[in-house]
Amino acid sequence: MSTLSTSDHTYMNLALRLAAQGLYTTQPNPRVGCVIVRDQQIVGQGAHHKAGEPHAEVFALRQAGALAEGADVYVTLEPCSHFGRTPPCVQAVIAAKPKRVVIAMQDPNPLVAGRGVTALRAQGVEVVVGVLEQEAVALNVGFIARMTRGFPYVRSKIAASLDGRTALSNGKSQWITGEAARQDVQHWRAQSCAILTGIGTVLADNPSMTVRFPTATRQPLRVIVDSKLQLPLNSNMLEPTMLAQSPVLVAYVVDTEQRAAVLAATGAELLCIPNQTQQVDLAQLLQVLAQRDVNEVLVEAGQGLNGGLLHAGLIDEFIFYYAPKLMGSAAHGMFAMPAFTTMQQVPDLQVLDVRQVGADIRVRAKPIVPVA
Amino acid sequence: MSTLSTSDHTYMNLALRLAAQGLYTTQPNPRVGCVIVRDQQIVGQGAHHKAGEPHAEVFALRQAGALAEGADVYVTLEPCSHFGRTPPCVQAVIAAKPKRVVIAMQDPNPLVAGRGVTALRAQGVEVVVGVLEQEAVALNVGFIARMTRGFPYVRSKIAASLDGRTALSNGKSQWITGEAARQDVQHWRAQSCAILTGIGTVLADNPSMTVRFPTATRQPLRVIVDSKLQLPLNSNMLEPTMLAQSPVLVAYVVDTEQRAAVLAATGAELLCIPNQTQQVDLAQLLQVLAQRDVNEVLVEAGQGLNGGLLHAGLIDEFIFYYAPKLMGSAAHGMFAMPAFTTMQQVPDLQVLDVRQVGADIRVRAKPIVPVA
Repeated sequence: MSTLSTSDHTYMNLALRLAAQGLYTTQPNPRVGCVIVRDQQIVGQGAHHKAGEPHAEVFALRQAGALAEGADVYVTLEPCSHFGRTPPCVQAVIAAKPKRVVIAMQDPNPLVAGRGVTALRAQGVEVVVGVLEQEAVALNVGFIARMTRGFPYVRSKIAASLDGRTALSNGKSQWITGEAARQDVQHWRAQSCAILTGIGTVLADNPSMTVRFPTATRQPLRVIVDSKLQLPLNSNMLEPTMLAQSPVLVAYVVDTEQRAAVLAATGAELLCIPNQTQQVDLAQLLQVLAQRDVNEVLVEAGQGLNGGLLHAGLIDEFIFYYAPKLMGSAAHGMFAMPAFTTMQQVPDLQVLDVRQVGADIRVRAKPIVPVA
Repeated sequence: MSTLSTSDHTYMNLALRLAAQGLYTTQPNPRVGCVIVRDQQIVGQGAHHKAGEPHAEVFALRQAGALAEGADVYVTLEPCSHFGRTPPCVQAVIAAKPKRVVIAMQDPNPLVAGRGVTALRAQGVEVVVGVLEQEAVALNVGFIARMTRGFPYVRSKIAASLDGRTALSNGKSQWITGEAARQDVQHWRAQSCAILTGIGTVLADNPSMTVRFPTATRQPLRVIVDSKLQLPLNSNMLEPTMLAQSPVLVAYVVDTEQRAAVLAATGAELLCIPNQTQQVDLAQLLQVLAQRDVNEVLVEAGQGLNGGLLHAGLIDEFIFYYAPKLMGSAAHGMFAMPAFTTMQQVPDLQVLDVRQVGADIRVRAKPIVPVA
């Protein structure tokens, strides 16, 4: 076993920063970075940028060339050991004959986890796993959730007044938060594979739910929970030019007015996915999304869909934006759910981060999962 | 006119820190500090600690003795020019023959404002007014509000879940926030002259609303808005030992069951103060409190009283404590008010301060008063 040095952390940090370059683009692949160091000199750097293009290790090995022999390779995720759209990286790494490979985290896919490490060690390469592991996990929460749970990682973004209200009683909500907060939301959208909203929000706000970065290279899938197929044909969600770049999936339960075929003709995909109480089966919907390689889902919805997701324990992270306004108790809340009768029943969260975004306050939190 | 130096700010800062020593004790008087400097040496320091005891200037002048002659006197509030419970400080300052008096803010009492300055200048003392004025105002918001508006300064403290809920639908709310937040609330109570609550909170929680500092030397007046006199005789608010230290005032509208006399017999004070819609006249109630020398009021109430106060524009500052919990939309909100129909009608606040207190988040905010 080797001992780790400060410089090991420094180089892994750099590899993590390279990995983060792919935050908006690598989906459905994970974000991965790689740094190759020989004699305290960085001789190769690489990041994965886009599915189908070379992996981070390949870019870094190309740059290092013959200097990779006897070098230290830092990579944020265990090099892949299977043939996907590209050949397995672990073979490329072995061929370059490094002295040591430092890995932030194992491959989360339970079917191949550890195989890359085993292959390297079998060739006499020293391998260290777990350097800055938490940071590596944070970069790929969605990919990991899909691989380990068969579910995407679900973030719910909620914009509210300081008294926790998301829309006036007549449904109006534009705009509660300021421009800076709305721009901040674009970053969460851009790193998501899918945006999930409800028909209530679509009818009230007629949103597009697209990524509006000037540099956006991909658009997420847009998913609408619309039990009774109320989606109007002239919704902004069905605007043809955008629909070509950003597909729409409508999850429904009943089609009493034969609207499924009409909506499908616009180019939207229709999915009938009822649960036993004749509502859209949210857990099953998320599993369907994971099967379609959706890593991260951003929920942008009202209290109906958010209440259903929270009640079913399907939200992994909450991103609250609080605007300095007070809308009053007649306005809509965040989570429509059955009433609790004791404070002990109330779900506890852990605050991850609090910051001011423009004139608004952003709070990120995650559920505290009871320790068994 | 003299120019100010960095050391002028340093000494005034020290005077402000001395003034803050009286945060929990000077009521109904303002918090005032004084520093006397001669030849770059501090020769006297003083703070006002308790009504009826000497003012800050007197303590500082006593300490300085003959060294006050020709010195610089820094005082956070214009020296008083009228006989109250103690003789006017301005005479004592003049008698000490300082070279210069530096004052953070003028006396807010419109009847005497500027008289102290005039008296000093008439005796040839150089006077500078306005050094660290904002900081001096912040120390005495309640005293200033009472003097200039005839109203106390009203803070509303609200403990809620992250979805803005203050109690379950069955009224239960103990405890939403954690120990650290509840301790923090004690500081706001301790600097208030009165705590204002509603009968809903009293019936649901049976609180005592007392200051529970081990070192508390005074208790605030406790005021209950109880339109129909529902206050139970066995309420903790009427506990005899505490009632002797911390009086209770019950504001009501109707006494259909002849309970006023029964409640008054416990030692509580009864005040019938209806408005034209047969509710307690909240504005008039606050004016009554100001007439009784109440500087700062802390509201600790549910959505009924808070909604009434907000709707009437009577809240000067909000102190929200958000616990990392989600109670759901069936739970009680913060402000029961008539519904707004456009986002433009929604009152805007300005965030003053955001911090984590234990596991909870504290947000202080104040209304943005429209510029005429």
